[in-house]
Amino acid sequence: MVGRPMQDKPAVAFLGPLGTYTHQAAYEKFGSDVEYIEQNSIAEVFDSLSTTVDIGIVPQENSIFGPVIETYDCLRRDEPIFVRDEIILAIQHCLIVRKGVQLSDIDCVMSHEQALGQCRSFLETELPHASLKKMPSTSAAAKALLSSPLTYAAICSKACLTVFDGLELLNEGIQDQHSNFTRFYVVAKSSNEVPSSTERRGRALLRLSVDVSNKSASIMTLLAALRINYISRIDRRPALDSVPFHDMYFVELNSIAEQSQDIWEREIEHGLERVRLAGGAGKLLGIW
Amino acid sequence: MVGRPMQDKPAVAFLGPLGTYTHQAAYEKFGSDVEYIEQNSIAEVFDSLSTTVDIGIVPQENSIFGPVIETYDCLRRDEPIFVRDEIILAIQHCLIVRKGVQLSDIDCVMSHEQALGQCRSFLETELPHASLKKMPSTSAAAKALLSSPLTYAAICSKACLTVFDGLELLNEGIQDQHSNFTRFYVVAKSSNEVPSSTERRGRALLRLSVDVSNKSASIMTLLAALRINYISRIDRRPALDSVPFHDMYFVELNSIAEQSQDIWEREIEHGLERVRLAGGAGKLLGIW
Repeated sequence: MVGRPMQDKPAVAFLGPLGTYTHQAAYEKFGSDVEYIEQNSIAEVFDSLSTTVDIGIVPQENSIFGPVIETYDCLRRDEPIFVRDEIILAIQHCLIVRKGVQLSDIDCVMSHEQALGQCRSFLETELPHASLKKMPSTSAAAKALLSSPLTYAAICSKACLTVFDGLELLNEGIQDQHSNFTRFYVVAKSSNEVPSSTERRGRALLRLSVDVSNKSASIMTLLAALRINYISRIDRRPALDSVPFHDMYFVELNSIAEQSQDIWEREIEHGLERVRLAGGAGKLLGIW
Repeated sequence: MVGRPMQDKPAVAFLGPLGTYTHQAAYEKFGSDVEYIEQNSIAEVFDSLSTTVDIGIVPQENSIFGPVIETYDCLRRDEPIFVRDEIILAIQHCLIVRKGVQLSDIDCVMSHEQALGQCRSFLETELPHASLKKMPSTSAAAKALLSSPLTYAAICSKACLTVFDGLELLNEGIQDQHSNFTRFYVVAKSSNEVPSSTERRGRALLRLSVDVSNKSASIMTLLAALRINYISRIDRRPALDSVPFHDMYFVELNSIAEQSQDIWEREIEHGLERVRLAGGAGKLLGIW
């Protein structure tokens, strides 16, 4: 893609700043084939899905902390949003320093409070005398390295090495708990906006809610009406009307391995028709 | 209850400090029949459910902000926890001052950031020239009134009037959005710990998870195996094992109006047996 003008590349909005794990996830999928546009919040990523920004990357769930509420809240919106793919990233905290600095030189480690907490064992064993400095984000810690004494280190994502010049990786995967994954949704404004190198995963995301006026139906009525047995996730958020405790459900489905894409799409369509007949609203939010 | 020694009253732990909406919910249910014990976090309310504390009150869900994650995370624990009742409280922000102060005297309003935001229209219309001061909680604002100039007011719950002496209510229900309710769970360590004045509501809470080794079952398999049609809530949290994206589901059920308590309990018991046969773990977390 060298020499191709910036404006020809698809634009990918992500939860910033540069160097976050969302940035890393986006980079692992799209590499340098796209133009990255950082946003200050998940809501702003959704807002930016317009003709100028083709694709958004938002965290959907972490394996320890669970679903990301802000992402589900944005999926409640009435405007067209389609999930087009998923990215699963192993969260690997890295110890990063300015070039040439050794582990034995370090007397201060900067990072977001959570990352410092998640690397407690490493810090106690390898850097028992270093002071810890809280920063607003892991990538803010990496950025601050550039104007800090050479005895400072940062805990952050590996992506920070590509964002800030003059930094070096000392240790990778220094977190206490090694089973820490974040799953991201690749979102677009239309279902035709297919990101590059997409393989079909046989997943779909539906949004379901029981009609307020229907007192005899429940979410179970709607799930039964769908007649799709493999449901991998069910999440609940308050509906956007003002009816107290009226909910929207987000239901992620898996197709059966042998099923063709056509049959799978038709099955979902028929399922959603049955949901409506059973007294619910149902909408396809993504298929990938 | 006057003259009865403190230690004879049942002890009720709640998410503090005194004067929070959780305190108000507890007070509306138990009045002065119990001894209130404030805790610093939802987790501490659950921790305190021992022989010395009989009952805990925790927020379960707000009609605008959705389920309270920390409460569901505590319900993942292996120790015995039973939901014994629910309390629904209309969140009514109040403008409170020191006795004798008039609306026209006020030049500063203190509260939690969220409460200040939720009363924006009232503040702009009635107190356009007052400065706003952020406090750690609504009840901290009420407490601070006692040592502030007479021109200060606080936005907080009505319960603060019973907690702090010398305060007076100027306006009640000053929030912009009037459909704002919080639902609380009354929790105990045993299913025999029945709070006073409980009426039967015909609800139950189950915890379900698919066995990690079972690749052919999904949450839908377990919900279908239950064979209980009226499900009012489904919530998902990461399971406490280290298997990435292995979940626990919390499923709230409603009984059919005519059903006797015996038949309802037996139906749940049989449903949970079928869940186990279908390759899942199922536990009754409460019936009320």
